Parts: sequence; structure tokens; C-alpha cells
Amino acid sequence: MTEGLEQLNNQLTTALNKRNRKNFRKLFLGLHGYEQSQLFAEFDFAQRKLIYTFLSPEELANVFDDTEEDPGEMGKYLDEMSDAYVSRLLSEMYMDNVVDIFTDIRPIKRKKYIGLLPSDEADQVRELIHYEDETAGSIMTTEFIKVDKNQTVDTAMQHVKQEAQEAEVIAYIYVTDEANKLVGVLSVRDLITHSDDEKVADVMATRVLAVDVNEDQEAIAEQVRDYNFVAIPVVDASEEIVGIITVDDIIDVIDEESAEDYSHLAGVDTETISRNPFQTALKRLPWLITLLFLGMLTATLINHFEGLLSQVSVLAIFISLITGTAGNAGTQSLAVAVRRLATNNHLKIARLILNEIATGIIIGVITGVCVFIMVGVWKQNFLLGAVVGTAMASAIFVANLAGSLIPIGMEKLGVDPAVASGPFISTLSDLTSVLIYFNIAQYFLQLFIK
Amino acid sequence: MTEGLEQLNNQLTTALNKRNRKNFRKLFLGLHGYEQSQLFAEFDFAQRKLIYTFLSPEELANVFDDTEEDPGEMGKYLDEMSDAYVSRLLSEMYMDNVVDIFTDIRPIKRKKYIGLLPSDEADQVRELIHYEDETAGSIMTTEFIKVDKNQTVDTAMQHVKQEAQEAEVIAYIYVTDEANKLVGVLSVRDLITHSDDEKVADVMATRVLAVDVNEDQEAIAEQVRDYNFVAIPVVDASEEIVGIITVDDIIDVIDEESAEDYSHLAGVDTETISRNPFQTALKRLPWLITLLFLGMLTATLINHFEGLLSQVSVLAIFISLITGTAGNAGTQSLAVAVRRLATNNHLKIARLILNEIATGIIIGVITGVCVFIMVGVWKQNFLLGAVVGTAMASAIFVANLAGSLIPIGMEKLGVDPAVASGPFISTLSDLTSVLIYFNIAQYFLQLFIK
Repeated sequence: MTEGLEQLNNQLTTALNKRNRKNFRKLFLGLHGYEQSQLFAEFDFAQRKLIYTFLSPEELANVFDDTEEDPGEMGKYLDEMSDAYVSRLLSEMYMDNVVDIFTDIRPIKRKKYIGLLPSDEADQVRELIHYEDETAGSIMTTEFIKVDKNQTVDTAMQHVKQEAQEAEVIAYIYVTDEANKLVGVLSVRDLITHSDDEKVADVMATRVLAVDVNEDQEAIAEQVRDYNFVAIPVVDASEEIVGIITVDDIIDVIDEESAEDYSHLAGVDTETISRNPFQTALKRLPWLITLLFLGMLTATLINHFEGLLSQVSVLAIFISLITGTAGNAGTQSLAVAVRRLATNNHLKIARLILNEIATGIIIGVITGVCVFIMVGVWKQNFLLGAVVGTAMASAIFVANLAGSLIPIGMEKLGVDPAVASGPFISTLSDLTSVLIYFNIAQYFLQLFIK
Repeated sequence: MTEGLEQLNNQLTTALNKRNRKNFRKLFLGLHGYEQSQLFAEFDFAQRKLIYTFLSPEELANVFDDTEEDPGEMGKYLDEMSDAYVSRLLSEMYMDNVVDIFTDIRPIKRKKYIGLLPSDEADQVRELIHYEDETAGSIMTTEFIKVDKNQTVDTAMQHVKQEAQEAEVIAYIYVTDEANKLVGVLSVRDLITHSDDEKVADVMATRVLAVDVNEDQEAIAEQVRDYNFVAIPVVDASEEIVGIITVDDIIDVIDEESAEDYSHLAGVDTETISRNPFQTALKRLPWLITLLFLGMLTATLINHFEGLLSQVSVLAIFISLITGTAGNAGTQSLAVAVRRLATNNHLKIARLILNEIATGIIIGVITGVCVFIMVGVWKQNFLLGAVVGTAMASAIFVANLAGSLIPIGMEKLGVDPAVASGPFISTLSDLTSVLIYFNIAQYFLQLFIK
């Protein structure tokens, strides 16, 4: 909360404590819904109970529509209200936000609340709730404005005026034909700049981009971003418009998806915040323990070379240098490959792989030469320098290639490549790096020492 | 490009080859600006030269406004056009897009093109170009609608109708007082649902959220997202409205910032794509070589313990297990800390640190016990198991804490904490892990073996 809001919070608390309804309303209703929702989240049970008498359900709907809180958390407040209050609150809210809450609460509660809705809205909610998570249907709202293509600009404008209070976005007005198919789109700008007696069909744009109700939200977000839309219509199999997705929901999708990518790269869910360290630890341990087993495999591999190590103990000095550097290179190429796969659908995979092979060779050779010189000078032993340098170059090359091949392979298998994490690739490259290092060392030493 | 667009591309190419202006226009002008821009990017020099005769500058402005191409690339096309054509093209484009292009081209070209603009627009561009990168001023546009608070709804509506063609977004109409200060905001919805003779001052919302022209774009993006705005007004020091930022530019900011965070975590710029592997390698090498020096420090540390290693060569087996796992834990806590710092401005730092200490202990102890058992059973040596397990627990604890302290410290120093990368934290934790491991091993061995 900002400082201004904290001050308001104190004033509102005073108003609540004094049961000063008038003062509370004056302060609270002057705010934006998002600010109201931030303040609302700070009040305790007794204070909320008072608020339900101070504010009408219509006024509270604004708070519920604009909140950035978890929908499941908002659902809990419903239990504190009377049935009549809940019924009016939910009717006033935008349908997509109601559905968000319903998706996150227990089925028995959901059934009860749907029962409190007017029957037509209850039907719409039941339909919306059915759509699979992360599809157009699950994030669309049914409050949009549509007009018939045979209407005049004037009658269309009258219709828009009537509907304007209900609709979530009035930037676009959708046009349907006799069969209720979506055939065009108009902006309010078009209506106010054309003369009253023109026909909608002559004013509308006929190339209207719509998405299927089952389309994935990430693909839709990309379209809205590329085309700079403020809303995009959603159609069903028979090309009837069934809803719209507004840009504020698209921003949430973009946020969600990029947070997902970031979390995957780090090998941990960075978004769900828990104040309990046991729960935090529980979120991080699965990946750590899984990778621990992969790490044990690397340990057994080194164990296999214990004879060599006890003969030439100096080799141990460079294990972490090689595994670490190769892991870093692998993480880099993994991140690049994941992002390219996500942002460029018509990418030539062969080209990407060839490019990474060439890049891996260049990075490997340059780093290898650096290491050759550093180790050779430091240990006054250029044979050792050659061993470590060659191993470094090869390990980087392999890790670099693995970093791009793994996400590409996952994409081909239909798995989201963003799931491959930095920790995974660096632990995997520990294994390959050690394998490369000791084999090269053994080979060189046989050559020169025996 | 989608399949549909590729087909269109062929048809348009045919039209160009046949110099069929009419056909080209019919096909091209039916498309959305973003699609036009994708197709435009596919044409070669000779084809583009023809297009400049087939399309008016006003029509091409649409293409330039809606492109997702690099502004510097778009700037190159200007050189191919006549001065008169450039002048009209730039005048038609939205000011923020013109400024984007001008920021990315050579100063001498910029000066020439600014000279081609009508003098009032040239002045505006000169002013906009001055704003620092990543501030409100650098992403705002000056095409917005403002009305006087003493106007009636009817005259305001007339004004909106006149301006509607020019303005980028007409969802909001901004209201100013006699001193030209921003005092309120109206939506088109307000205008069309209120009666004509009401005064703007009585219809407008007076709590209007505006951002300062020098405010950072990331903070603005957060506001627009939280408040679900379609545009946000920008004011100067004297509270006069100087521009608006539209939601499509906000989406670009969100994309840019999240790509930046992702790149930082991976220790590589994942967005700038180059087809030249030498350039790609050049982007990745600086971090790799920097971290190589940090890795060499770890190597000298192990070197310091060579005596111990040659005595107890089995210790070498677990170096990569400990450094790898601690590095993974460090990467996790780093990512969590960076995200929390980015999304929660009023975070209690002490609380976050305490939480990470507790989490580090839990993760460390659990992983340490696992390793103690695994190593003890495998090597039939529970003393070794205890050494490796204790070292693992301590190394994880330290890496975990470093992972959150480093970004917090950077934030305190005024550096963007997102700059701390996963490769950096895991290379750093290699050093601390090795230090911990060998000290614990030495201590235990002195205790039991001597």
C-alpha cells in the first residue's frame, strides 16, 4: 500500500469504529476499485461485517471486480454475507470475475452460490465454468455489445447507450447477421463519426479477427499484443460470438506466462508466496532432491576414476571449474532456445541447432584456450593445461548443445520447453563434463606419462 | 507468418510483378495494419519502391504504426522514399511511433526527417525525443483528446467527434481547467449516457490518476495493470497534461521487462537474435569469462587442500555433488528474492531474510540427512557420510542465504536486483561450498583419524 492509502486506511478504520456510515462511504466511494480492494483486504471480520451494511452489493461489486487478490480468497468473503447480498453482488460483477471465484472455491459452495443467481446468469456461469483452464472460454466475459448488421448507425447508437452500463468494454461493438454469426466489428468512434442513417453493414469492418473458445490463452495474448487490440471476440464452432476477452485479462495472462517461464528457469515457483518456511522448503525440495540423484550419478562416475585421481590428485582441483563453466554455458543456451521457441513459431529448427553448434565451438575454443594458458602458467605444466583446456572446450560444447537440444526435443514431444530448468541443465552438464574431463585426462596421461 | 498470410504474400507479389495497382490495393488494404507490416517486411527493395507508388503515405502510416519490427529497421525504409512522401507519412503516424524510429536512427538522418515535418509537429517530436529512455515521456503519445471542464456534454461530444480521427485512444477524454491543469477524466460512455446540456465538470470523475513525465516505465506498467486502465495520462511539473500512454505500449513494456528479468537470470541476453554465431558467442562470452575467474579462485582454494586430497582422495568424488546442489538451492532463492523485490514494494526485508534463513536450515538439514545416508550406505563409511552430509547442509544454507542477500543488497545500493544471474550465484556458491567442504573434512579427519 502507498502512504496515501495507509492514511486513508486509518481514517476508514476510525469511521468504522465510530459506526459513521456517511463518512465511511464518502471516503471509500471516492476511490478507484483497485484501491478499494487493497483497503478491503486490510479489514478484519468484524469490520467487513459492518462494511456489508455500509455498502450496497452493487458498490461492493466494484471492489470485487477490480481486485488483484487471489479469487479463492475473495470467495471466502461470500460466506460472511447474507444470501440476498451475495445474489446481488454476483449479479453486478462481470461474469469472468464471478467464474474466476467459482473455479477456486469448493464445489458445494459453488453450487449454492450459482443457485442464488438469476436463472439466465446461472446458465451462463455454468457454461463458462466448463471451459478448460487456460483457454479462451475460461478467461472471456459475456458482457459485450452486439448489434444487427441491418440496423442504422442511429439505432445502433441507441442500443449502445442502453447497454453501456453493463458491458465491460465498449471500444468495440460486434455485428452479427441473421444467423447470429459474427460478421463485423465497429468502434464507438465509427458510430460517432458516421451519419445517423447509414447502415451498420456499410460502416463496419468486415475482417474481424476472432478466437475459438478452446484456443490456448498464451496464443491469444500474443495476437492481442501484436494487433494492439483492446478486446478480442470469442466464437464457438458455429461462428457465433459467445464472449470477449479484454486487454486487462490479457495482461494478466502475459504476467502469468512470463512468471511461469522465470520460475521454470530457476527450478522453483517464484510466485506463490508463503510465510511458513516449511511450506517454502517443501516447494523447493522436490527439484533439489531429484537433481541430488542426478548429482549422485556424477559422484559414482568420479568414483569410477578414483584410481586415476589418487595417482594424479591435481586433477581434482579443476573438477568444479569445468562443471561450473559448462553449466553456465548450458544455462545460457537453454534460456535462448526456450525464448526463441516461445516467441517464434515458424523457426527453422535445423538452423537453430547449426547456429548453436557453431556458437558452442567458438565459445568452447576461446574459453578452452584461456584455461589452457591460465592452468599452464599457474601450474607450470602445459600438459595439464592442455588436458583441462581440451576438457573445458568439449564440456562447454556438449552443455551448449544439450541446452538447445533438450527444449527443442521437449517441444517436439509436445511438452512445454519452458519446463527445462537452469538447475537441471547445469546438474546434467556436471555429469557430461566429468565424463569428458576424466576420459581426456586418462587418454593424455597414457600418451605422455607411461 | 501464418499460412493465410503466406498465400496473400504470393498474391501480392504477383500483383506487384504485374504492376497491378488496383489488385494490390484491394488485397493489401483489407488487412489489419499488423498483418500489412508482416507482409511489408517480406518485400525486397524493388517491390517496396513500387509500393510507395501504389499506397499513399497515409495508407503506409498504418503499416508503420502497427508494426512489431525494430524501429531502427523501419527507419531504414524512410531513405527509400521521396522527401514529400516521408513528410506526409510521418505526419500521419502516431507521435510515439515516430519518436521510437527517430531514437534508433543516426542523428544526421533524424535531423533531416524532423526538418520535413510541419513546424508544430517538429517541435513536439523534439520535445518527446528528449525524455530519458524507459520514462513516461519516452513512451507517451501526444495524440489525446482534452476538453474544458466548463463545456457541456454536447459540445464536448462535438469536439470528440472532430478529434476522434487523430487521437490514438478515445476511451478516455481528459478534462482541464482554466490554468490548463488536468482536473478530471470522462469516458465516451459517460458522454453518451448523460444528457446533452449537463456540464462536463458535473459528469467527470475528479480522482484522476496521472503519472509524472519522468516516472519509470516499469512502475507505470504496474499501475496500469493493477487499475485495469486502457490509457493513463502523463503530466509535467505544473500538472498540465502533456501526453497519454496507451495499453498497447504498456504491454510492450511488460514484455520487455520480463524478458530482461529472464535474460538476467540466465546470464545472457535472450532477446537479441543474431544469425551470426560469432556475434552470438560474443554476447555470451563476457559473463562466462568473468565467472571463469571466479571459478579459478575456487580451483586455487581446492589446490590449497591438495595435501588433504592426496591423503583422502575419496573426498574428490563429492566436490561436484556439493557445489552443484548448493548452486541449485542458491539459484532458487535468488529467483524468489528477485521476483519478490520486483512485485512487492512494501516488503519487510527483515522478514524475508528470516524466512530464507529458516528455509535454508530446513532444506539444508533434509538434503544433508539424505546425503549422509546415501554416502554412508554406498561407501560403508558413516564418518565420510557425516562429513559430506554436514558440508552439504552448510553449503546449501550459505548458498540459499547468499541467493537472497545479494539481490537485497543490490536493491539497497540502488542497482536493479534482477541483474544478479543464476550462473553468478552458482559459481559464487562453488567457492563457498568448497571452502565449507574441505574445512569440515579437515576438522572431522583430525578428530577421528589422527
